[in-house]
Amino acid sequence: MKAEVALADEDFLYNQLADKLEKNILDGVLKTGEKLLSVRALSKEQGVSLSTAFKAYTQLEIKGLVEARPKSGYYVSRRTARSVPSTTTLEKRVPEEASVDDIVAMVYGNLNAEGLIRLSIAVPSAELLPVKKLSKTLSESIRESADACTGYESTQGNVSLRKQVAKYAFNWGGNVTEQDVVTTQGCMEALVFCLKAVAEPGDTIAIDTPTYFGIFNVMKSLGLKVLEIPAHPQDGISLEYLESAMERVPIKACLFVTNFTNPLGCTLPDEKKKQLVELLAAKEIPLIEDDIYGELYFGNVRPRTCKSFDKKGLVLLCSSVSKSLAPGYRVGWCIPGKFKDKVMHIKLMHTVSSATPNQAAVGRFFETGRYDLHMRNLRKTLHTQSLLYTRAISEYFPESTKVSQPKGGYVLWLELDPKIDAFELFKLGLKYNISISPGHIFSTDARFTNCIRICFGTPLNKEIEFALKTLGALAGDIIRKAG
Amino acid sequence: MKAEVALADEDFLYNQLADKLEKNILDGVLKTGEKLLSVRALSKEQGVSLSTAFKAYTQLEIKGLVEARPKSGYYVSRRTARSVPSTTTLEKRVPEEASVDDIVAMVYGNLNAEGLIRLSIAVPSAELLPVKKLSKTLSESIRESADACTGYESTQGNVSLRKQVAKYAFNWGGNVTEQDVVTTQGCMEALVFCLKAVAEPGDTIAIDTPTYFGIFNVMKSLGLKVLEIPAHPQDGISLEYLESAMERVPIKACLFVTNFTNPLGCTLPDEKKKQLVELLAAKEIPLIEDDIYGELYFGNVRPRTCKSFDKKGLVLLCSSVSKSLAPGYRVGWCIPGKFKDKVMHIKLMHTVSSATPNQAAVGRFFETGRYDLHMRNLRKTLHTQSLLYTRAISEYFPESTKVSQPKGGYVLWLELDPKIDAFELFKLGLKYNISISPGHIFSTDARFTNCIRICFGTPLNKEIEFALKTLGALAGDIIRKAG
Repeated sequence: MKAEVALADEDFLYNQLADKLEKNILDGVLKTGEKLLSVRALSKEQGVSLSTAFKAYTQLEIKGLVEARPKSGYYVSRRTARSVPSTTTLEKRVPEEASVDDIVAMVYGNLNAEGLIRLSIAVPSAELLPVKKLSKTLSESIRESADACTGYESTQGNVSLRKQVAKYAFNWGGNVTEQDVVTTQGCMEALVFCLKAVAEPGDTIAIDTPTYFGIFNVMKSLGLKVLEIPAHPQDGISLEYLESAMERVPIKACLFVTNFTNPLGCTLPDEKKKQLVELLAAKEIPLIEDDIYGELYFGNVRPRTCKSFDKKGLVLLCSSVSKSLAPGYRVGWCIPGKFKDKVMHIKLMHTVSSATPNQAAVGRFFETGRYDLHMRNLRKTLHTQSLLYTRAISEYFPESTKVSQPKGGYVLWLELDPKIDAFELFKLGLKYNISISPGHIFSTDARFTNCIRICFGTPLNKEIEFALKTLGALAGDIIRKAG
Repeated sequence: MKAEVALADEDFLYNQLADKLEKNILDGVLKTGEKLLSVRALSKEQGVSLSTAFKAYTQLEIKGLVEARPKSGYYVSRRTARSVPSTTTLEKRVPEEASVDDIVAMVYGNLNAEGLIRLSIAVPSAELLPVKKLSKTLSESIRESADACTGYESTQGNVSLRKQVAKYAFNWGGNVTEQDVVTTQGCMEALVFCLKAVAEPGDTIAIDTPTYFGIFNVMKSLGLKVLEIPAHPQDGISLEYLESAMERVPIKACLFVTNFTNPLGCTLPDEKKKQLVELLAAKEIPLIEDDIYGELYFGNVRPRTCKSFDKKGLVLLCSSVSKSLAPGYRVGWCIPGKFKDKVMHIKLMHTVSSATPNQAAVGRFFETGRYDLHMRNLRKTLHTQSLLYTRAISEYFPESTKVSQPKGGYVLWLELDPKIDAFELFKLGLKYNISISPGHIFSTDARFTNCIRICFGTPLNKEIEFALKTLGALAGDIIRKAG
C-alpha cells in the first residue's frame, strides 16, 4: 500500500485532502474561526508529504475557506467563499469610445516598453522553458541531417514530428497515425488553413465567447461572419444556446477551444464534448477544435478532445508547441479529418511547406523523452503559479472580485465590480508600468467591460506581487470614486 | 593595367570575347565552316585565361554560331542560329482533357519517387548550397541567444535580418532601412500578405504569363481574378498590352516577376521598369514585385528592381532566400511601401510572427559575409550550368526546338515543334523516370502546350545528360509519328 501511495501523483493527493477538508468546513464539522492543524501535524495525520498538506491549505485559502494568520497557522475563514465569475451572457453594454482594435493596439503596441510588467501576455516566460536543451536538440538535428534541413520539407510536414504528434494523440483518446497530421507554422496558421478548408467568405462561424481577440481579426480577414456562443466558466459553451442558434442561423462551421479556454480557463467535460460532436455531426457541421492548451492540465489526466469522439472526420484538431515549449519556433499542426487533402492544398498554395529544422528539432525533442520530462515540470509549475497568483489577487483585490479557477493553462479571468471599467483600469495600470488585458478585447461587443485577464506565465516574484497589489488598490479606488 | 585586367570579372571578359567573335561571324569575317583558333591559341592571342576562351566558344556554340567537332576543334557552324522562343501570345488552344490542376498534381505528386530525375523542380540542389556553413551559423545563433530564439519574434521580424535586407537593397538601387522591411515565411507568404493588403475578393490582378503555376491557385484561394499580360522572352511583359488592358479592365493591382522570370527567364530592362512604375503610379495601382530570382544574375551587375523607381510607396517588393540559400528555412520578406502597416496587421493575424532561429541564422549568414561569398560561387555555377544544359539540349533535341537564353535564375524554357503536346512528352518522360514541367501548367488556358520547362539547379552529370538525350529522342519520335 505504501508503495502505491508513494507512486500516486502528489496533485491527486492534495486535491483529495483539500476536498475532504472543504466538506468538513461546509458541513460545519470545522467551524468558522476554528484553528486548523499545523501543516506538519496535518501531514503526519494524513500520511502525506509536507508539500501536499501545504498545497491543500493553499487551495482552501484561495477558495476563501481558510485563512493563514502570521506566526499562528491556518483558521477556518470568517469570510464567505469567493465565487467564480458568473456565466457569460449575451447582454450588450454601451460600447466604449475606443474600438476593440484600438484597445488591442494599445495593449499589444507597447509590450516591449522597458520595465513593463507583462501580465497581459499569455506565454510562458523563458525561465519556464527548456531553452538550452531545445537549442541543443536543434543543433543535433541540423548536424545530423544538414542537407535535409536546408531543403524543402514535404508539404504534409516532417514525418518524425507527425509520428510524435500521432503518438501523443493517444493521451487525449485519439487514434491517429502520422498520415492524419499536417504540420503548420504555429496553431494560428493551422486555424486559418482549417477555416479556409471548411468555409467560404460570407459564411458564419460559431465561436466561444469570451475568446482570444485574434480570432475576430482572422475571421474578418477571411470574410467570415462570427456568431458568439456564451461559455460558462466551469464547463464551457452552452450546448443549448448552440443548438437553438443552429436552428436560427446557417452555421457553416464551429471553432471552439475545448480545454482550458483563453481567457475563461474552462474545459468542456468529456460527456459534453461527446454531445457537441454528435450535435454537429447530425448536421454535418465541421468543428475546428483549438486544443493549444490541452497539454497544460494541472490534474492527473490529460483531458480528452472532441476529436476523440469524432466518427465522421468532421473535427479538425489544431495545436502547437507555442504555449508549452517554444513560441518562437512556430511549430504547430492540425489533424483535419476528412479535410486533410484540402488543408494540404491550401498549405501548398500559401506557404509551400513549413520550416524544416524547427520541425525536426521539435520532433526529436518529443522522441527523446525530453518533452515529457519538461511538461511534467511545466504543469506543476503552472499549477503552483495559478495558486500563488490567485492568493495574491484574493488578498489585494476588492472583496467583490471574482476569480476563475482554471484547471490548466496560463490565465486567470477576473470579474471586477460592475462599477469598474477595465479599460480605465488598464490605462491606470500602464501609468504604473503594469500591462493587463481588459475584457473589452475578448468579444465583439462591450460584454466584458468589467473583466480583466491576468496571465501567470511568469513565476510570481516580489515585483509581480507588488504589481497585483497596485492593481487591486487601483480597482478599489475606482469603486470608491464611483460611490 | 595588368592588375586591372586580373581584377576584372571573368564573366565580363568572356562575354566581350564572345561578342567580338559573334560580330566577326555575322559580318562574314569568319566564314561558315572555317576552323577557329584552338582554345589555347585563342586564350594566348586575346590574353585571357583558358576558361574564359572556352566559355566564349561555349556561348557561341549555344547560339548555334560555332560547333565543336570531336578531336578537331571549333568551326563556324553550318547550321542557322537557334532562335529564342517567340513572344507569348494570348491565342488560345483547345484545352486538354486533363485540367491544369490535374497536371500540376501529376508533376508534383510523385516528385519523391525513387530514381526520378527531377528536371521539373526549380530549386538549387543541396550540393550547390552551403549547408554545413549555414547549419553552423544556425547553431551559433541559438547558442548565443537561446532565450531569444525560443521566444516569439516581433511581428515585423528579426531586426538583424531586416538590417541586412536593407543593406542588400543598395545593390538593386533601393534606399530602404530596416523599418521598411517585414519578414515572412518564404516569398509565397509575402506575396499572399501583399495581395491581401492591396486587394479584396472579386478584384482583378494583372500577372505576367507564362508564370509560376502556384500563383493561379493562390489567386483563386483569395477570391481574386487574374488577367494575364503576355511577356516577351527577352524583355518581359508588354507595357502596351498592359496599358490597353488598364483601359478596358479595372485592374486593382499587378503582380509581376521583374528579373529572370519563371519559366521564361526574361528580365524587364531598367528603362521598362521605370516606365512600368510610372504607368501604374499615374493610376495609383499598386505593384507587387516578385524579385525572388533577382540575386541570381549571371552578368556583372545585379539588375535593378521596380521598387528602386518607386516614389509613391506603391511597389511592394517580395523576396526570400529559398532559391539562393535554404528553401527549408522558410525565410522571406517584403518591403511593402505604404502598405507596411496593413501587411504587418495581416501577418499578426495569420501567423503572429515568423520563426526566430531561422531569421537569426540567415541574418547572421548575411552579416558575416558568408552569403556574399556563397552567392558569388552560386552565380558562376548556375551560369555554367545554364550553358551546359543549353548545349546538351541543342545537341539532343530536334532542330525546331527553341531555347530561352536566361541571364539569371534556374530555368530554361523550350518551345518545341507545334506538333508536340508537352503533356504527352511529360508522360512519356515519366516512363523513363524523367520529370519535366509541361507548359500547360504555366497559364490558365492551353497557351503553351508545346513548351516545357527544364531546370538546371542540379549540375549536369552523365545521368542528366542521358535524360536530356532521351527527352530529345522522345520529342523527335512524336514529331515523326505526327508526320
